[in-house]
Amino acid sequence: MQEAQFIGLLWLIGILAEAMTGALAAGRKQMDLFGVVIIGCATAIGGGTLRDMLLGNYPLVWVENVHYLIAIAFASLLTVAIAPVMRYLSKLFLAIDALGLAVFSIVGAQKTLMLGFSPTIAVVMGLVTGVFGGVIRDILCNQVPLIFKKELYAVISLFTAGLYITLNAYQLEEWINLVICLTLGFSLRMLALRYHWSMPTFDYQSSGDQHTH
Amino acid sequence: MQEAQFIGLLWLIGILAEAMTGALAAGRKQMDLFGVVIIGCATAIGGGTLRDMLLGNYPLVWVENVHYLIAIAFASLLTVAIAPVMRYLSKLFLAIDALGLAVFSIVGAQKTLMLGFSPTIAVVMGLVTGVFGGVIRDILCNQVPLIFKKELYAVISLFTAGLYITLNAYQLEEWINLVICLTLGFSLRMLALRYHWSMPTFDYQSSGDQHTH
Amino acid sequence: MQEAQFIGLLWLIGILAEAMTGALAAGRKQMDLFGVVIIGCATAIGGGTLRDMLLGNYPLVWVENVHYLIAIAFASLLTVAIAPVMRYLSKLFLAIDALGLAVFSIVGAQKTLMLGFSPTIAVVMGLVTGVFGGVIRDILCNQVPLIFKKELYAVISLFTAGLYITLNAYQLEEWINLVICLTLGFSLRMLALRYHWSMPTFDYQSSGDQHTH
Repeated sequence: MQEAQFIGLLWLIGILAEAMTGALAAGRKQMDLFGVVIIGCATAIGGGTLRDMLLGNYPLVWVENVHYLIAIAFASLLTVAIAPVMRYLSKLFLAIDALGLAVFSIVGAQKTLMLGFSPTIAVVMGLVTGVFGGVIRDILCNQVPLIFKKELYAVISLFTAGLYITLNAYQLEEWINLVICLTLGFSLRMLALRYHWSMPTFDYQSSGDQHTH
Repeated sequence: MQEAQFIGLLWLIGILAEAMTGALAAGRKQMDLFGVVIIGCATAIGGGTLRDMLLGNYPLVWVENVHYLIAIAFASLLTVAIAPVMRYLSKLFLAIDALGLAVFSIVGAQKTLMLGFSPTIAVVMGLVTGVFGGVIRDILCNQVPLIFKKELYAVISLFTAGLYITLNAYQLEEWINLVICLTLGFSLRMLALRYHWSMPTFDYQSSGDQHTH
Repeated sequence: MQEAQFIGLLWLIGILAEAMTGALAAGRKQMDLFGVVIIGCATAIGGGTLRDMLLGNYPLVWVENVHYLIAIAFASLLTVAIAPVMRYLSKLFLAIDALGLAVFSIVGAQKTLMLGFSPTIAVVMGLVTGVFGGVIRDILCNQVPLIFKKELYAVISLFTAGLYITLNAYQLEEWINLVICLTLGFSLRMLALRYHWSMPTFDYQSSGDQHTH
């Protein structure tokens, strides 16, 4: 139970951090406070919600326990209040977001495995949980999803989920598995940000589309 | 049964009005007639469909009763035919849209409550039913969802759904509850349009994003 | 069983072709390799996934059989490798995409009918299966869905699904039905591309929106 409480606490930190990235994205589009709350909520719970809808796993976590939704709405509004300070906290914020990425990927994989799906699907669902909140945020803000273009993000989610599932298959103690995956996932993301590690990009201009450049 | 028929009629008017807003949005993007019909359908049934998918409530209303879908497709095409006249009907149209907003919010909350979910989730689902048709429309038309930026819209949906659930909890006669919520929801929206009431907006330019302005 | 194997093979060709259109669209937005894979997967399985989520039909095909997902990811990466040659293969590619459109529409309608839904819903779901992979692709790439603006596409999907369901209702031999629908759907799409057949478009500028032009 102690692992569950520990990971639960990290998960809560993660969704609140995601809500804040959503609120900031809404602010960049000059949305109103209600838009801020909706984008905050969609960012925080979007990944897990999509996972459970793809798996047909009902009721959804936040439908059953509405307190999460209220906490997320509050975190979104808090972001507006502390926005002037956010500039100076941007490094702390990126670190919390990196932690959230690792936690979401692990929790998504763990839940999928516990529902009886295959390890491969568990890894895929770790990725969905880890990155699709941000994808939904960017779609609602009408921009190309950042995670497809910037520093390593989705691939770290996939790696973290995959490592967790692999170590789990070797029946490693849950506590040790969590610590290893969290540390590696978090560190890789921070290093990717620090050294601007990114995937090779695919730049394709078909003859029919040249006028777009 | 009479309340059910009354609210059912208003709901039908609401989805047809939503279909028309979808068709007009498609026309602003110079879509073809098929695009008009698809955007019209997605706008009209998108909110309720998302609600039922989030709740795992199957079969969907329009899957079980396909006549709604056909009526919506017809309303979308009719919008194209009467488009030249729409300019002069824009006030009538905004009024029907305001009525639809109130009806959708009430119906969404009502259905969720009847499925046995908590009152808070019923209010959230009233909001989802009321506003996400428009959000899906704007995403399909590749623009930032209007309801996050313009005159009070989503907050009226939340207020209307919340009022309905509250009066319902105090066991107010259903008829009286409906009349109060419809009247207040509709009037608030019309007043918001008339006097340009809007929520405060959140304008956030992070240092890293200044080049976007 | 032989029809099932034949249509299954065509379906596999179709999802691989769809994955390639997704990968190329991601390349036009200079996404990284991971974005390419995710857009490729979403394009290939998006239509069928949306259909099954609308119908509440779980588990999803690719959740149950993860090999499809791996094949799609591979096809997306292969597209990057052979991109320089794609320019010269564009006609072949359009032909495979046209075949995929016909196959998806038929398979979507067939599956829906086999789940016990009405023929009309089967036709609608043939359309959803045929075209929404491309719609999801365009949303993820932040552009107005192509299929709502260009040469006949969605209407061919609807026609193919409708013809299949009609001939099926008249108890035509399954083999013959498949051959007729595939041939007609494919040929119509190729003719639409060749002769630039398109639906009439709806161009609506409301007075309040004139500043957008």
